[in-house]
Amino acid sequence: MTFKKLIPYAAAAAFVSVSAHAMDFAKDEDAVNLRKAHMDLVGTYFGDMGAMIKGKKPFDAAQFQSNADRLAVVTQWSGEGFEGKHLTSDSKAKPEIWENKAEFDKLMKAFSEKAGKLKIASASGVMKDSIPAFKEVADSCGSCHKKFKNK
Amino acid sequence: MTFKKLIPYAAAAAFVSVSAHAMDFAKDEDAVNLRKAHMDLVGTYFGDMGAMIKGKKPFDAAQFQSNADRLAVVTQWSGEGFEGKHLTSDSKAKPEIWENKAEFDKLMKAFSEKAGKLKIASASGVMKDSIPAFKEVADSCGSCHKKFKNK
Repeated sequence: MTFKKLIPYAAAAAFVSVSAHAMDFAKDEDAVNLRKAHMDLVGTYFGDMGAMIKGKKPFDAAQFQSNADRLAVVTQWSGEGFEGKHLTSDSKAKPEIWENKAEFDKLMKAFSEKAGKLKIASASGVMKDSIPAFKEVADSCGSCHKKFKNK
Repeated sequence: MTFKKLIPYAAAAAFVSVSAHAMDFAKDEDAVNLRKAHMDLVGTYFGDMGAMIKGKKPFDAAQFQSNADRLAVVTQWSGEGFEGKHLTSDSKAKPEIWENKAEFDKLMKAFSEKAGKLKIASASGVMKDSIPAFKEVADSCGSCHKKFKNK
């Protein structure tokens, strides 16, 4: 079996760990903090990859791949804390999320799938192989934030 | 091979994904936020497990196990952001961490190992099987916080 033929299997494997994980939050703040925690991790890993792509720090294939691996995990969790309409003055989430929940969920699912593709791309160890998938993740962040996040 | 004989292998497998993941932080705040994000996730998963153990919510074996699985992942990351002495007014980390870094790292490693044991225990689907390992994780949190975290 060639590497190319393996890709669909690897892609499937990257997504199998998505499972229902229902939290209930005693306080709105707990849900907001969980969402912020997910986004802090996403920002840390994706930011570090971006710094390498933009030449702000040297490319380190192992670190780049480790970031991508973790991003693929954390993006599977990122929709959590949004099940109920939990809003605080500290949250940048727009109420429109809960008026368009199916669309929001679809964007979150696409986000996680694109991160899964980036994880697979990063496994080559060659930075340029990851750039298209990296851009797709960045676009995915942007399209959801534009619609559902206050500045 | 019996289930009991499998446990050491499963335990080893739970820890293999620990790898060096060196971040550099432009601002102290970035490291502090990453540490807080890890602890928010730990608190979410461990808190949900605790609510079931304390009878505050019904035991749900799948959810309990999912919490334990994630805790085993996130606790492998929890020492990150502590490599350098990053402190802000918003951080509860004591400066003693960096005066006793080897001890701190050892406690963090033990924390992750105990979470790995809890993950394995939770796989039985029977709550009482997880209680000793749950308590060990709780003690692990407490012993590190007592020494290295401000109230």
